[in-house]
Amino acid sequence: MNINNEHGTTVLRRTADYKPPRSIRTWLVGRPLQTADAPHQTIGKLVGLAVFSSDAMSSVAYAPQEMLIILAAAGMGALGISIPLSLAICGLLVILTLSYEQTIHAYPGGGGAYIVARDNLGEIPALTAGAALLTDYILTVSVSISSGVAQLVSAYPALHDYRVWISVAMVLLVMLINLRGVKESGFAFAIPTYFFLVMMFVTVGVGFVRYLAGTLGVVSAPPMDLMMEHEVLQPITLFLILKAFASGTTALTGVEAISNGITAFKTPRSKNAGTTLIMMAVILGTLMFGITFLGHQMGVLPSETETVISQMARTVFDGRGLVYLLALTSTTVILMMAANTAFADFPRLGALMATDGFLPRQLAYRGSRLVYSYGIAALAIIASLLIIVFQASVTRLIPLYAIGVFLSFTLSQSGMAHRWFKSGRLRLGQKLTERGSTLEHDRSWLFKMIVNGFGALCTLVVMIVFAVTKFSNGAWVVVILIPGLAAIFLTIHRHYARLAQKLSLEHYGRTPHVGRHRVILALGGVHRGTLEALRYARTLSDDITAVHVSIDPIESEKIKDKWETWGNGVRLVILESPYRLLIEPMLEYIEELQQHRQPNELITIVVPQFVSKQIFASVLHTHTADTLRNVLLNREGIVITEVPYQVE
Amino acid sequence: MNINNEHGTTVLRRTADYKPPRSIRTWLVGRPLQTADAPHQTIGKLVGLAVFSSDAMSSVAYAPQEMLIILAAAGMGALGISIPLSLAICGLLVILTLSYEQTIHAYPGGGGAYIVARDNLGEIPALTAGAALLTDYILTVSVSISSGVAQLVSAYPALHDYRVWISVAMVLLVMLINLRGVKESGFAFAIPTYFFLVMMFVTVGVGFVRYLAGTLGVVSAPPMDLMMEHEVLQPITLFLILKAFASGTTALTGVEAISNGITAFKTPRSKNAGTTLIMMAVILGTLMFGITFLGHQMGVLPSETETVISQMARTVFDGRGLVYLLALTSTTVILMMAANTAFADFPRLGALMATDGFLPRQLAYRGSRLVYSYGIAALAIIASLLIIVFQASVTRLIPLYAIGVFLSFTLSQSGMAHRWFKSGRLRLGQKLTERGSTLEHDRSWLFKMIVNGFGALCTLVVMIVFAVTKFSNGAWVVVILIPGLAAIFLTIHRHYARLAQKLSLEHYGRTPHVGRHRVILALGGVHRGTLEALRYARTLSDDITAVHVSIDPIESEKIKDKWETWGNGVRLVILESPYRLLIEPMLEYIEELQQHRQPNELITIVVPQFVSKQIFASVLHTHTADTLRNVLLNREGIVITEVPYQVE
Repeated sequence: MNINNEHGTTVLRRTADYKPPRSIRTWLVGRPLQTADAPHQTIGKLVGLAVFSSDAMSSVAYAPQEMLIILAAAGMGALGISIPLSLAICGLLVILTLSYEQTIHAYPGGGGAYIVARDNLGEIPALTAGAALLTDYILTVSVSISSGVAQLVSAYPALHDYRVWISVAMVLLVMLINLRGVKESGFAFAIPTYFFLVMMFVTVGVGFVRYLAGTLGVVSAPPMDLMMEHEVLQPITLFLILKAFASGTTALTGVEAISNGITAFKTPRSKNAGTTLIMMAVILGTLMFGITFLGHQMGVLPSETETVISQMARTVFDGRGLVYLLALTSTTVILMMAANTAFADFPRLGALMATDGFLPRQLAYRGSRLVYSYGIAALAIIASLLIIVFQASVTRLIPLYAIGVFLSFTLSQSGMAHRWFKSGRLRLGQKLTERGSTLEHDRSWLFKMIVNGFGALCTLVVMIVFAVTKFSNGAWVVVILIPGLAAIFLTIHRHYARLAQKLSLEHYGRTPHVGRHRVILALGGVHRGTLEALRYARTLSDDITAVHVSIDPIESEKIKDKWETWGNGVRLVILESPYRLLIEPMLEYIEELQQHRQPNELITIVVPQFVSKQIFASVLHTHTADTLRNVLLNREGIVITEVPYQVE
Repeated sequence: MNINNEHGTTVLRRTADYKPPRSIRTWLVGRPLQTADAPHQTIGKLVGLAVFSSDAMSSVAYAPQEMLIILAAAGMGALGISIPLSLAICGLLVILTLSYEQTIHAYPGGGGAYIVARDNLGEIPALTAGAALLTDYILTVSVSISSGVAQLVSAYPALHDYRVWISVAMVLLVMLINLRGVKESGFAFAIPTYFFLVMMFVTVGVGFVRYLAGTLGVVSAPPMDLMMEHEVLQPITLFLILKAFASGTTALTGVEAISNGITAFKTPRSKNAGTTLIMMAVILGTLMFGITFLGHQMGVLPSETETVISQMARTVFDGRGLVYLLALTSTTVILMMAANTAFADFPRLGALMATDGFLPRQLAYRGSRLVYSYGIAALAIIASLLIIVFQASVTRLIPLYAIGVFLSFTLSQSGMAHRWFKSGRLRLGQKLTERGSTLEHDRSWLFKMIVNGFGALCTLVVMIVFAVTKFSNGAWVVVILIPGLAAIFLTIHRHYARLAQKLSLEHYGRTPHVGRHRVILALGGVHRGTLEALRYARTLSDDITAVHVSIDPIESEKIKDKWETWGNGVRLVILESPYRLLIEPMLEYIEELQQHRQPNELITIVVPQFVSKQIFASVLHTHTADTLRNVLLNREGIVITEVPYQVE
């Protein structure tokens, strides 16, 4: 250790080569990192696309399929409706992209829904956005991993029975990777993302060429499991179409990711991030429409046993060859990357909200590997539970999914619209600084307000459509959960605020003088341990009382005799306990003392505490000291001192 | 409270009308009883028979059946072997009765196997007997309750699927009754026992009369489940016959009960207890032979769905009428009584062994209702687990059962034989007092030694037969368990002995003078809570150091500034923690202090401890204080003082 002595305060500093001790944890998550090691690295557009868009782009692996699953209830003939629906979703994507483009320029420091809502709409909307986002990150993990495993299972049907446990294992794997801390080297992200993009564009491209050439066949032996389920077909109602549309909108989950991560981009940050957003939207839209359109042409059927991507790939590439396997592998990998994104975002938002005092403080602590370990672990546990409960079925998870996404879209864009409105009311050149973000008059505020406002309106409508059409399929859970979470956040905030006020040193006078100091020595027997405790008690005060709770009169008599020899003249009080209770008589005695105490009187309870290094030994002793401590800690003005005696 | 002051010691005594506060526990197990309320009541022969023989006599409900189940493997023709086997068991019963009669007279204070083995054979045999008995009491509960429920299920087959949970519920019911404390009023025992005896003698009696009159039919529609199972019949080997015999010997479990409970009898105790033992043996033998003989005559078949008693009762009484139901009810009730006996014996033996230091001390504490609550609860939990694991099947539980019983028989009688041998070597009139029991020369020591020795030999042979024939059916568990338990008892004993030696005040000089008293104040922040702790620290010593582990340099800077204002001039040490660990730097600092400490130097760590009455709040705080305390408690010479600050 180096010692620096400044202004009477000693600072002990570690030398640079100091390494903390190794443990099993070190092996699992890697050696601890120093705080100074936190990475500061910026990325360009192409890498940025890879880092931030896996969540959005991987959605095409399940969104078209989920539309088809809903439409299947109305029979084979209804599946074609998926094509206009996918066009509608592309339209929604355009609106969202324009809207978020504006957010990116207005919040170059990162404008997630929680921050935008907090700055522009107030506490309740911010907490609602926070609840929606956290819910959503959890579902991103559950849905993406479940869908990734569904791709695997399509290629290797023998794995079907183990899909739940493969999924859970994957969640834990992604968790471990994140606990080690992902060095966001970009490169590691770029490979799988571009691999996926290449495989998808090859699949869709070859499919289109064969379609135009008239050589595109139909899916051979398509999986009939879901189509057979509907013995009586439903009519094609508006409700059914809206429900299918709602399922399809899950393709848009993850679009907001870039606006959260602007600070990671090279300067000019906003410009680079904005361009990346547009690139991502174009790719996403193309793939969404391409997969839906081609799938319909080749007679893809929705199924729980084989994914749409698998059916399409084996039709385009004429069977389950190498290219087919590469296409499915790339899809599985990109879905794992999407889950990985949530593992970065969830703990970061959790830490942000914890710093603001809305979540337990622990979420803001960075672990030995500089990551928010508590948040990562919490996410993995909840997502795994969801996977187990919903048996890794994407179709059963989907109804819980997009509500949170669209709620956060709506709040974020309403916030932006309100911001433009405020900007319009400022005089030219006037500046308004709130919470670190500076607002000034914007000439085109009206246009921008309309864009964001329209975006908010559209996403609000989609959210309501989603909640209504999927309410009975599970959406009700989220409808209850999000306000519930927001209420919990508020309660936590109030607790911390009250605590801070209580502990505040404002209006705190000098501490009063200590008058009398009474010491109570809890006496279970007279032996070396208690004599050590007595020796200690004598250093505290001259006013010592040894108190023994008597259950067995013969035993008490012995203690009395021994105390006369060894007690050093300290007075002994024996509390008779006819009901053989140990703790209660002691508590009553202390209570009586407290009632008669003088102002500024201190009471210290000295408890001899038996300790042993053998875990086994702890079963062999009554933990009276522990119990006493737990009960007395809640009494004001009582200090508990444990004098340990070891027996090893 | 009354206060008595004698020899400088204050004794606080409760007034007689003091009642402890009520709680949910009061409602379940009744209001606490004073130690002075312990019952002192003696009983006569007829009531004694009822109190002590339910375990033994209830065995006839399963022992004949279990013999038949083994014989069934060799087909219908083999079932008749049960008759000579039951005669052999009656012979064994005679030997055991004579042997225990002698024990009763030699140990008028109660001569259980543990005590007899401890006094006459030494520690290891005593511990083996203790382990055997404890194992056995547990199995008595599991087997008796399972058999009781099997009777119920025979009468109401619809209950068959719920038999495991009905059994567990019954165990918990008997546990609750025992936690309340059974007022052994005798009367409560006499009714069900005599009800059972009357019903059994009526059943067997009527059966015999009808057999002699030639009007006894055969069982109509006997249950074929077990007979059908054996597609290929086994030959009738000696092994099979011995195995069936072993199953039948479970009828003898519980025979030792009276010898444990001699003190409960009216004087002349030994004479009354001995007569009761003989009465019990006669009844047990009669029933055992009667049931086996009659059962065979009427073509009773062993089964997992209908008990032998049920088949017999419905054949004797021509169907499932009222008398049939009464016979089955009385059997269920006596089996529950048998379980209840184990609930009295297990905790009593546990307490005895705990007092001797072979089991955790807690087992010797009597709870609020004057019963050994820990022992009762432990018995209920283990017995319930066994019932669940073995699906309440008597047949699957039996192989674990009688080994312990016969091992304890063997040890107890070997002990007695050794005692007579010692008695024979004493001169006339010479007395030998060991562990409170007095031994003198007995004229007929040789005869008595032969009786007990022969008893020991017979039970040893039975035990070996049992262990060998049922080894692969589960007996191996007990063969491993009993020595394992004995080894654990020894380890516990050694632990307590070492502790007592360490704590002993022999050769303990006056405690040394305290030299320096160093106080370390663990500082997480500067607020009202820590200033309270500082105020307290100042009463302990002038040598105070506040120590802060710094994770965030900005935060530490603030703490340093605040401390300059509020720290009262106490020196502050800041420990930099580049790896964001909180506990480890503090530990290292304290270790360094300890290395340089002077002789007789005391170190006290003052830890400000946040406490809240809201349970929910504890999730919102890091429990650094708790962690620190747990780690430091294991270091010698360090005292931990928690200064609480409440925020309610």
